[in-house]
Amino acid sequence: MAKNMEISLLFDFYGDMLTEKQRNMIDYYYNDDLSLAEIAENEGITRQGVRDSIKRAESQLLEMEERLGLARRFYEMKNGFESIRVAARDIQEYNKRSGFSHDIDERASRILEVSRRLCEI
Amino acid sequence: MAKNMEISLLFDFYGDMLTEKQRNMIDYYYNDDLSLAEIAENEGITRQGVRDSIKRAESQLLEMEERLGLARRFYEMKNGFESIRVAARDIQEYNKRSGFSHDIDERASRILEVSRRLCEI
Repeated sequence: MAKNMEISLLFDFYGDMLTEKQRNMIDYYYNDDLSLAEIAENEGITRQGVRDSIKRAESQLLEMEERLGLARRFYEMKNGFESIRVAARDIQEYNKRSGFSHDIDERASRILEVSRRLCEI
Repeated sequence: MAKNMEISLLFDFYGDMLTEKQRNMIDYYYNDDLSLAEIAENEGITRQGVRDSIKRAESQLLEMEERLGLARRFYEMKNGFESIRVAARDIQEYNKRSGFSHDIDERASRILEVSRRLCEI
């Protein structure tokens, strides 16, 4: 069972739809990077039990994304904000070089600030 | 049972997590604006059965949003794009008035285009 980075991302998104037990397993495995054997020992269940639990949780996360596609939409938005930020910084540079306009600089700063804030939502 | 606009929005978001039967009921009721009695007649079930089905689906949609909050995050992003667009249009206007820079105009157009595209995701 290879640790799958996609699962970490989907867990951030949809983790709150899992049971508390499933959330803990995924958290130990993906975020704390414990092995199946270590989790089994801590939880007092078998290694196979841990594996099954994680597999079920992973399937649920993947199925939610397959149905809803919200993580993909979010990451597209985040990429969009990045290219908006690049363009706004360019505007500030060009503006400095060609007869500085305070209004243009102020609006470019606002674009940078909004896109930075939204990336953290 | 008042028709709740919030439910329509959440249905767009999370509808694919409902069963096909639930989706149909919500669709008839909210999108086609049929009455409970009309849906009951078309589906060959009781009016109470339709009401229960819709209530259950509504609870699921509301619970998903309560847990995940993704609809709220999306709408905040969309509002952010709107204020980015306003600022980019301002930049184009100010740029026209103060010694036009082609580079600034081009970057502002790019910001407008990216934010328009992302709003449609």
